[in-house]
Order: sequence, then C-alpha cells, then structure tokens
Amino acid sequence: MDWHDVLKSLVEKNDRKILLLVADGLGGLPLEPGGKTELETARTPNLDRLAQEGTLGMSIPVKPGITPGSGPGHLGLFGYDPLRFLIGRGALEATGIGFHLEEHDVAARGNFCTLDAQGNITDRRAGRIPTEECVRLVEKLRTIRLPGVELFVEPVREHRFVLVLRGEGLGDAVNDTDPQATGVPPLEARGADPPSQRTAELVNQFVAQARQLLAEEPQANGLTLRGFSARPKLPSYEELYGLRAAAIAVYPMYRGLARLVGMELLGQPQSLEDQLKLLRENWDRYDFFFIHYKYTDSTGEDGNFQAKVQKIEELDAALPQITALEPAVLIVTGDHSTPCKLRSHSWHPVPVLLWADSCRTDPCQSFGETEALRGGLGQFEAQYLMPLALAHAGRLGKYGA
Amino acid sequence: MDWHDVLKSLVEKNDRKILLLVADGLGGLPLEPGGKTELETARTPNLDRLAQEGTLGMSIPVKPGITPGSGPGHLGLFGYDPLRFLIGRGALEATGIGFHLEEHDVAARGNFCTLDAQGNITDRRAGRIPTEECVRLVEKLRTIRLPGVELFVEPVREHRFVLVLRGEGLGDAVNDTDPQATGVPPLEARGADPPSQRTAELVNQFVAQARQLLAEEPQANGLTLRGFSARPKLPSYEELYGLRAAAIAVYPMYRGLARLVGMELLGQPQSLEDQLKLLRENWDRYDFFFIHYKYTDSTGEDGNFQAKVQKIEELDAALPQITALEPAVLIVTGDHSTPCKLRSHSWHPVPVLLWADSCRTDPCQSFGETEALRGGLGQFEAQYLMPLALAHAGRLGKYGA
Repeated sequence: MDWHDVLKSLVEKNDRKILLLVADGLGGLPLEPGGKTELETARTPNLDRLAQEGTLGMSIPVKPGITPGSGPGHLGLFGYDPLRFLIGRGALEATGIGFHLEEHDVAARGNFCTLDAQGNITDRRAGRIPTEECVRLVEKLRTIRLPGVELFVEPVREHRFVLVLRGEGLGDAVNDTDPQATGVPPLEARGADPPSQRTAELVNQFVAQARQLLAEEPQANGLTLRGFSARPKLPSYEELYGLRAAAIAVYPMYRGLARLVGMELLGQPQSLEDQLKLLRENWDRYDFFFIHYKYTDSTGEDGNFQAKVQKIEELDAALPQITALEPAVLIVTGDHSTPCKLRSHSWHPVPVLLWADSCRTDPCQSFGETEALRGGLGQFEAQYLMPLALAHAGRLGKYGA
Repeated sequence: MDWHDVLKSLVEKNDRKILLLVADGLGGLPLEPGGKTELETARTPNLDRLAQEGTLGMSIPVKPGITPGSGPGHLGLFGYDPLRFLIGRGALEATGIGFHLEEHDVAARGNFCTLDAQGNITDRRAGRIPTEECVRLVEKLRTIRLPGVELFVEPVREHRFVLVLRGEGLGDAVNDTDPQATGVPPLEARGADPPSQRTAELVNQFVAQARQLLAEEPQANGLTLRGFSARPKLPSYEELYGLRAAAIAVYPMYRGLARLVGMELLGQPQSLEDQLKLLRENWDRYDFFFIHYKYTDSTGEDGNFQAKVQKIEELDAALPQITALEPAVLIVTGDHSTPCKLRSHSWHPVPVLLWADSCRTDPCQSFGETEALRGGLGQFEAQYLMPLALAHAGRLGKYGA
C-alpha cells in the first residue's frame, strides 16, 4: 500500500496546532575531536528546558551519507520521500527566486553566454556579467512572443536567468542546450516524446529570436538552457494531512518550497521579529506553521563558528514568544547540517527536538547532537517527522483494527 | 530480491526453541515529564536479570508515528510487513471471533439495522440490540441457502455479526452496502470484477432472503454489510521460517491472528497459569511458541496505571516457569504501546528484550523504555524481530558466500 495513501486514510482533524521551526543547517561539528558543536556551545536555556520535557532524536535528511540541498532537505521535513519526489533543476531555480510555478509550466535554468562569429561558445558564462546587466537583457527577452504559450523570463544573478513556458500539452523531457564546452555551438533542443518535442520546438524558436535581440551585445550575445522541468507533483498539506498550513519565511527559496506543498505564505517578513509577529497575528487561522530561520546555515557556510553560536542563542531567546502561544506540538530541527568546520551542507544527522504533552520523555537534559543520540526518537529519516508530529497532536488514527 | 524469499533461502533447521512472549500494549508513558513508565515502575527482578544478560531494543510496530491495531501490530511481530500484508476489515472481524477463514472465503462485517416501511434506514445499529438478540437473529439467517456457496453467519456483539461466503471463484472487490446515513435504503452490492460481481449477486440474494426472515422484527428488520475481504495471503511460519509453531492465547483475536500464519492453537486457556501449563505439556512438540498476555493492554486502555504495573509484575513472577524450560531464544515485547496516560494504543516504540546465549550484551541493567533506548538492538521495525530471533537460535545461514 502506498505510504501516503496510508497516511491520508488515518488523518483525523482536531484543533491542536503543530509548529515546525526549521533552523536551516542546524547540525554542526566540533572544531576539534571531542569538542562541542555549535549547538552544544550555544547557551540555550529555553531549548534545554523543552529538551528535558520533550523527546530528542536525530533526523537523517535523505539516507545515511547523503548531503541534501535545500529542496530535498525541506521535502523530507515536510514528509515527502526526497528520493521519490524530485524537484527538477529548472523548477527549483524558479522556486528559489519566488516564482510560483503552476500546473502546466515547464521551467529551465538559463545562462547568458558569449558566441563568436561562427556561433561557437567562447564563454559559457558571458564573463559573469553583473546582475544589473542580466536584468536589462531579461527585459529584452521578455518581448519575445511564441504561439500558444505564455512566456516568463526572470533574472537570477550575474549571467543566470529562468525561463518558464506556460501552456497545455508541454513536456519536460528536453535536453540541455548547454554543451558544457567552448568552441562548439549551443545544442538544439529536442524532445523525447511528443509534448516535449513541441516544447523543444518552442524553445528553439525562443533561442532564435533571442539571438537576434542580443546580436549587438558585446558579451551576452547568446544563451543556453538546462534542467527543463515541470512543476513537481506533490500532494498538498491539505490533501495529505488535512492541515491548513502557513509558512513564515524570509527567503524566496523556502517560501517557494512551502508553496509547492500548498502552504500559504504569510506576509513579507524581513527578520525573526517580523516572523513572530506574523505568527501571533495568524495563530487562530491555521493548524500548522512552518517557520524558517536562515542564519544558522549562512553562518555555517561562512565557517564562522562564533556567529553560528550567536544565531542559535538569538533563536533560543525568541522561543518563549512561541511557547506562549501554546502549540500542541513544537518541533525544532534543521533541514540538514551545515558545520562551520566544513563551510558547507553536510550529511550528518540533524538534532530534532519534539515537544508535546504525549511525548515519552527520555534522559536528554539539553538540546545538542551528543545528547540527541540517546533521545527517544532514535535516528530516523526526516520523511517520518510529519507522521510523528501528527501522531503527537492526536491527528492520526489507528492503522488496522 | 523479495525479503521473504531471502529469509526462506537462509533458513536452517535445528532443535533450538524460540519463545515469543507478547505482553499486549506493553509500552507506556510516564504520567509526568521525567517520570517513570508503567514498565519502569513495576518491580520486575526476573525481567531485569534477563535484560542484564540479554539485549534490549525498541520496536517500531509499523513506521514512526503510526499507531497499529492488533492485526498490524501482531503481523509485524510475526515478521510480515504490515504495510504490505493487509487483513481486510471483514477478515479481521471474522478472525477476531475465532472464525477460521479458509482459502476460498470472503468475509464481511454485518450490522443489523432498522428500516421504515419504505425500506429506508432509520437506525444504522438497530438500537444496539443486546447480544442475545443478535444470537437469536443470526440463527434465523443461518437458514438461508444460496447456490454454489456455503454460508456462515456468526454473532459478534450487540447489532454486529459476521457473514462468510465459502466457495470457488469468489471475489472481495464488493462495495459496502452501508450508506453511512439514515433516511436512505441500504445500497445494492456490486462487484468490480467478474468473481466479485458473482459474489455481489449472492450477497444481494442473501440480503433479500434476510429481509423476509426479519420482516416482523421490531428493531432489527434489515442489515448492511461492509469490509468484504478474502483471507489474507500470508506465507505460513512453516513455509517462511521452517518452524513448527504453536500459539497459546486466551482471546479469540490473537488465536485467529496466529492461525492466519499457520500456528497451531494449543488448548483453550483461560489464564496465564493455564497458558504455562500448556507450554510445559507441549514443549517437546514445537520449535516456536507464541504466548499472548492481554492484561497489559486492557489495563492501559482503562487508564489504570497501578493495575498495569501490577499485571506486569504478575507476568514477571511467572517468568521462572518459562526460563526453567530453557528456550534457546526468549523474547519479551509488545505489539504496540498502550500508555495509561492516553487510554489507547499509541505509536510509541515498544521495548524489546531478547535473551539468548548468542546475545551481544549491552549496558542495560533493567527492562524499561529509557533503558531500552541504549540497548544493543537499537530501534528497528517490528518486522525484523523474527529474523533476529531465528539468527539468535542459529536458524539462519549466511547470505551470499
């Protein structure tokens, strides 16, 4: 039996609220063997109290050893097996700039490039033109019209942009036109099935018109496209869990991921303080809240151990504002680890704190990686966090009699 | 490769006996954060000694967050993935009253209901007639004869009964005839494929004859049927594990579940003392014994913490009678948790005690939930308990050369 069908069949509704607080890249590493991680170094009296009353565990974002990007990392936390539910490169790039993909969209990542007189690529990134240049060139491309489809061209950064085709009967089995080499021309687009072939023909028309519009540009006189992908088919939070879900996130990527699973986006917060204000204002209107806190990841990527510690302490200081709302289930975790020592996302399991009245308490006395190893939730794949959340909220009925 | 095929290919026979003692709903919760569970509160010197010598762990009945009924809970312990091997509602109801389903049976749950003069349902449960009334009405229905099939009608409780059709070429893809509403008539049965269509036609004939037989009844003058299901296809203990298996259980549900996997039922015990006597008497005749102890679940459902503690202590006191028989592998666990705090089955992992001469001992000093968190078996899905049992009994050969 399909796992999501099982879940759906068990869902019961009540008024108990679930709050998922994702501190991006929360998991860390000690700088020296035997030392403390960022989370263990931080003074976190509020998290520690919740850890004493609740249950800890370790979340494996995808599978042991697999380092996830933000897409799979969040899909896992949201309850979608990241190996089964894939977000194509183009769709993820569009999502990451806050573009709301619709059902019949096909998205691709675009690169401006430099072509010589023979049409061969001399620079695959057009000298990394500044973002303002990218914006100007995208305006040009927006004048292109193609029969039967709506087109969207969105600047990303430097030489990168997003192309979205919207219309019935499109397909995304289209090859990359980037040959991944210089001295050769961009490839023709071809489709592997009839809808994709139609899409490829439209893409080739787009490229031909773009070449004319860009012909006089000194650097960015060509373009390549890759990662063609449709909007991923993800059952929504409402369908899957019967939850009216809201997302309170600052950055476009996480807002986009939340929208893909049917969460409503609340406001345009610029800070954690804004986020908490939105949470209070909307508390009565939703069953589930996803709050995304970015700074534990960015300080990890910077390799700034002290800054990450401080960002964790700032989050801890804000917790009483959340617990004051009395969620039935409060979860604090990350979508992956971002150890300062590695200055990047990593595969290490992520500490999870689950607080609820129905928790089986465990011996854990504080919130940290070593302590979480003896937590009652054990080590588990992130995709099971939502079932655990629902269960602790009394929102999952019995399987079988 | 199919997991059960792997297991089958590895099975070796010897004379080492395995005993699985299931304390139903064993896992619990502390009443207050940081407190002790029922099992941790109970004085269990015998279990504690076994815990010191053996290995502990935590069993996840189905998947994290999923609360199982008795069916999936036991299928997991017996080594059948509860998401793959489903027992339909009708088949489980028949099993639960000790009806032995055969290969060509289709079972359904029946409700007596009250119909008005137009044949519309006015009470879906016929005023919850007393069980004696149900028995009397079932006697009437037993006079019904249909061509080509054998019929069984069995009372359950109050307005509930079980209908079983036995014969070649039946199917269970038949809709519920209960419209789940009053003011409308029961639905016609329809089949989704030819064998099920034949079954549906027989069911409609049965209902028509029953209507005549019940016409003069003041309350229970109609009936509805739901949960049509065939006997689940479960490879037997003999096929799968090469084990001659016996079940010693008091209650019909667990006797029925054991029979579905090919265990032989020993006697008609009425108490733990009866069960232990049957165990001694039959010790030489089987390789595997399943003993079911109900009272840890019923006291949990009652929310009676002290009573559950006492039932655990009574079980502990009986253990020397079991160890005196010198099983090669002794397992004590539950099919799910039934915390008194929740007064119901729950999703929380269940402590497992596995004692064998081939155990790797772990630091655990007593049998309890917190202690089991640092047990050598870790947290694992219940379906892997039987392979662990076979391995510790030296009954599983090497996989691959």
